[in-house]
Amino acid sequence: MHDTANAFVNDLALPGAATGRLAGLSLGVKDLYDIEGHITGCGNPDWVKTHGPANQTAPAVQMLLDAGASLVGKTHTDEIAYSLMGVNAHYGTPINMAAPKRVPGGSSSGSAAAVAAGLVDIGLGSDTGGSVRMPASFCGLWGIRPTHGAIPLDHVMPLAPSFDTAGWFTRDPDLLARVGTALGLAASGPLPDRLLMPVDVWAAVPGPVVEALAPAVQKLQSAMIAEPCRLSDTPSSDWLEMFKICQAAEVWEVHGAWVEAESPDFGPGVRDRFAMAKALDPGLIATMRAQRKVFAAALHERLPDGAVMIVPSAPGPAPLRTAEESELDGFRMAALKILCPAGLAGLPQISMPLAEIEGAPIGLSIVGPRGSEGTLFALAQEATS
Amino acid sequence: MHDTANAFVNDLALPGAATGRLAGLSLGVKDLYDIEGHITGCGNPDWVKTHGPANQTAPAVQMLLDAGASLVGKTHTDEIAYSLMGVNAHYGTPINMAAPKRVPGGSSSGSAAAVAAGLVDIGLGSDTGGSVRMPASFCGLWGIRPTHGAIPLDHVMPLAPSFDTAGWFTRDPDLLARVGTALGLAASGPLPDRLLMPVDVWAAVPGPVVEALAPAVQKLQSAMIAEPCRLSDTPSSDWLEMFKICQAAEVWEVHGAWVEAESPDFGPGVRDRFAMAKALDPGLIATMRAQRKVFAAALHERLPDGAVMIVPSAPGPAPLRTAEESELDGFRMAALKILCPAGLAGLPQISMPLAEIEGAPIGLSIVGPRGSEGTLFALAQEATS
Repeated sequence: MHDTANAFVNDLALPGAATGRLAGLSLGVKDLYDIEGHITGCGNPDWVKTHGPANQTAPAVQMLLDAGASLVGKTHTDEIAYSLMGVNAHYGTPINMAAPKRVPGGSSSGSAAAVAAGLVDIGLGSDTGGSVRMPASFCGLWGIRPTHGAIPLDHVMPLAPSFDTAGWFTRDPDLLARVGTALGLAASGPLPDRLLMPVDVWAAVPGPVVEALAPAVQKLQSAMIAEPCRLSDTPSSDWLEMFKICQAAEVWEVHGAWVEAESPDFGPGVRDRFAMAKALDPGLIATMRAQRKVFAAALHERLPDGAVMIVPSAPGPAPLRTAEESELDGFRMAALKILCPAGLAGLPQISMPLAEIEGAPIGLSIVGPRGSEGTLFALAQEATS
Repeated sequence: MHDTANAFVNDLALPGAATGRLAGLSLGVKDLYDIEGHITGCGNPDWVKTHGPANQTAPAVQMLLDAGASLVGKTHTDEIAYSLMGVNAHYGTPINMAAPKRVPGGSSSGSAAAVAAGLVDIGLGSDTGGSVRMPASFCGLWGIRPTHGAIPLDHVMPLAPSFDTAGWFTRDPDLLARVGTALGLAASGPLPDRLLMPVDVWAAVPGPVVEALAPAVQKLQSAMIAEPCRLSDTPSSDWLEMFKICQAAEVWEVHGAWVEAESPDFGPGVRDRFAMAKALDPGLIATMRAQRKVFAAALHERLPDGAVMIVPSAPGPAPLRTAEESELDGFRMAALKILCPAGLAGLPQISMPLAEIEGAPIGLSIVGPRGSEGTLFALAQEATS
């Protein structure tokens, strides 16, 4: 394979089962998932140096192989998956074929770039704070973050376990759902009986983004008119703070000992976030965890079975590859405001490539209650019909 | 007439023309409009003491008389019209028959209360910052603020001339439009070809308000699906600041000399606002006036001919009559955030009594470009069909 998108860490020829619903399709896997006999690199050279080969292939990958998909390579990830932009100081930035002057988004950068470039049919990634939804929006792909806990993450590097999910990219909604069934989800379900439009989430993105997405929002309502609502009684800056702190606390619980022992070389941004995570006040963590519970409970109530929320996937098109770290971080904060509710409440979300802005893709998302993937897959297919 | 709503300053029997489109209908007029031979009281006893009888009836009132409406009395106003709640420290608070434990809203309090109580068919008021739209929402009435400058305000007490408009209340949308024609507006027009839903305005009101209005918002879209948009690139707190300062500057230009000469006795709230107006820094006024121009130009561009925005009329039901001044002022600020765009840009807005919250009325508003009253009247009639 000629890696035109700088998407792959290495080639790996691991043929899938001869038959199955994914037979004949090719697969790239984010370098957080263990592949037996290979070192899982996690986007950081010091991680590679301090870890041995995996003794088992991650069950999620095995399920895809068993369903017939053939693994053609491991794909780049942002360092320790602790980013959203797809920039890796050690291995470079994969190329976003849908907007080559722009970043691909991350942390599942290589899987997204590989699918966008047509190098594989399926890109397996992971989504903690938006690491599938963000690159899906940037690269013009269909991408899903499933219900937290729905797909096994054994033998996958954890980032923040109470937020971590497996997720994947495809170029069409039909395959997005088929991959879901291979991973044990319902491929389809009833269309929602209520569409909700949370005005506080929409108000958190700039006017041109709202305008760019408006035609797709209107089209999605052709069968059913959306109800305006609020996602939360608290401002979006509060959700962001909850997410940042709760995520960082778990990151440090999981990776702090390794960071302290190895003093790994981190790129900009990632380095700052680990420093922030290390310095967190335990009282603040406890407060934010308590607030998260209240937020999630309220959101579960506002998004009952049968209801689906329509939200923007991103606060803009992908930033340019030439952007400074401060600009990338500013974008990341703006993005997390609208991406974090699904993470805080463990909800599934699909980003759909239904719009463009400044000549680049931007996604429209649908978010459902826990376990509603079948309904989301059905609505996603409806959205393109 | 038995004034069951404490709505009237005094009885006045001024019969209208025998024929005309308003023949046989009764009219109450806010005590800011001159009626020949009577002192216009403006809601403040010291104003009455320092002004003589009017030498001419205000043209707007004369137009309604000529169209057949009969004036049955002058109605209470908040002091100098510089309030939104309908509370008057000197003359009491008119009774809101739609929610008797709650304030009627102001400053066109008496006209609203009189129409809600069935004491008159038409209540003439005025709207600078929401003085018709707010009481319409509180009292379950149809109320309009027309395009700035569309209806003559000669022989009407000015409050802030670049914001001041005549406005009126009715119990049905048909009569709302008929009064408009008597005042020189188009009674009807084409339905809008675009409905816009400014998410930043909606995000400025609490969740229960959004939920209460959602069914009416959905119904309004039965013929045409709304496009999400932003009203402005600046936050709603900025619009509020622009409005407050620009309004206060004009209030002081118009009334400062009288206040300085007479030291009138003002009730709470009004007193504070005049003190604030007096103390304004000229540099700040100039800055806010410049910002208003930019804001208005951008809004005119976002709301082109044929488009209509759907917004909440109020951030909640009317406050209770027992509310403290601080609570009333907090509500007023929250209300001005969503009411001020029409004032800042001179746009017409109709509040429609299409929802309830906590057992009290709340309005849904439509805002059109300048001169779009015909379209707004047509849409208002459609909303009830």
